[in-house]
Amino acid sequence: MTLIGAELSTVEAGVIEIRLPFRSDLTQQDGFLHAGIITTIADSAAGYAAYTMMPAASRVLSVEFKVNLMRPARGETFVARAEVVKSGRTLSVVRADVFAISGKGEKEVVATMQGTMMCLV
Amino acid sequence: MTLIGAELSTVEAGVIEIRLPFRSDLTQQDGFLHAGIITTIADSAAGYAAYTMMPAASRVLSVEFKVNLMRPARGETFVARAEVVKSGRTLSVVRADVFAISGKGEKEVVATMQGTMMCLV
Amino acid sequence: MTLIGAELSTVEAGVIEIRLPFRSDLTQQDGFLHAGIITTIADSAAGYAAYTMMPAASRVLSVEFKVNLMRPARGETFVARAEVVKSGRTLSVVRADVFAISGKGEKEVVATMQGTMMCLV
Amino acid sequence: MTLIGAELSTVEAGVIEIRLPFRSDLTQQDGFLHAGIITTIADSAAGYAAYTMMPAASRVLSVEFKVNLMRPARGETFVARAEVVKSGRTLSVVRADVFAISGKGEKEVVATMQGTMMCLV
Repeated sequence: MTLIGAELSTVEAGVIEIRLPFRSDLTQQDGFLHAGIITTIADSAAGYAAYTMMPAASRVLSVEFKVNLMRPARGETFVARAEVVKSGRTLSVVRADVFAISGKGEKEVVATMQGTMMCLV
Repeated sequence: MTLIGAELSTVEAGVIEIRLPFRSDLTQQDGFLHAGIITTIADSAAGYAAYTMMPAASRVLSVEFKVNLMRPARGETFVARAEVVKSGRTLSVVRADVFAISGKGEKEVVATMQGTMMCLV
Repeated sequence: MTLIGAELSTVEAGVIEIRLPFRSDLTQQDGFLHAGIITTIADSAAGYAAYTMMPAASRVLSVEFKVNLMRPARGETFVARAEVVKSGRTLSVVRADVFAISGKGEKEVVATMQGTMMCLV
Repeated sequence: MTLIGAELSTVEAGVIEIRLPFRSDLTQQDGFLHAGIITTIADSAAGYAAYTMMPAASRVLSVEFKVNLMRPARGETFVARAEVVKSGRTLSVVRADVFAISGKGEKEVVATMQGTMMCLV
């Protein structure tokens, strides 16, 4: 998160937002945010979101996730918003959307993730 | 790829390997390679692998991928090896495994990806 | 759909619901609705939902989907509700939830799907 | 499995094959095997494959799976072949391919699955 310049912007029970300002060294060959970076912020948001519902002494681990890249990720800021769909004792299912926000404040969803997080106690 | 220090190590028709030396700023909270970085090299390898089967003037786009994280990603080097399962005119299906290689040369699969790449002409 | 006794219950632009009454021959070893049947109604709802946004002469094809099974699928009726997240010229992304409804009318989400549908013209 | 006429054809440690003869009531609108049926045999094979590596008194549960449908599923027989990629104490990762076999014995992969199975003790 530090390496790419991302930061937590919302923390609620079961909901996390991570904000990432655009940086040209995070892009792929066409100048859009790289799919791996999109996944990094989506997965981090998803993990933290699941973690907000877990016992205090536990740790969270990503089991798996699936990402659909829906539009070229171009914008001045990117926001990954994760929401817990089902919080279980061992496994949780989380959904995360990644939005691109233009200089004029226009917001467009560019990717969506569905994944499984594990609680380790 | 440049940002994280990854490089192409194998290029064949339908097969690509990308190699990434360990760096502590690419880890998550427990010191293992971050899932987003694992995905970055797997997705890049998958995209290039699909691209080796596409017409010269085309571009390749990741449509979606799914990653299972199977073991803590600890090692001195990481290798993402992608192989095309089905190369279609518009869509290709690619599988990629990510291996962790220890200082002693022991190799262990830490993640596996299944994804869809699109050919744009 | 006929084989398993499922029927369309809602048809709107970008939204489809399919309803399936419980039948004991659609269960797995523990008496819950089989994951394959859950997927059948979710995928059908997802395909139809994408299709409602496509040109009249086109056909729809499932490219891929990912399903999380979140609770044992026990109930008197099951409903798959699909909603289009992004409708594109060639590819559409659809999300579908499958709910179990008890005899008393209690509704619980048992599975969630994220998938890609293709428009063939 | 009984409803659709599928049967186990191979059982080894970590490997399962399920065989399904074509039946016209298992097809979708174009006459090909329905994606839900493909998933049913792939998921069953994947679950059994994981189960061959689990302790005797345990049960197996599908956590999630992702399926890529790569070719129209037309054939006289269909075979789902599942192989365990990583067998863990709680979670296992399994890959399954579904093949269509023509009357002349030609074999073509039509779908591929990557999924997570859970061991309940």
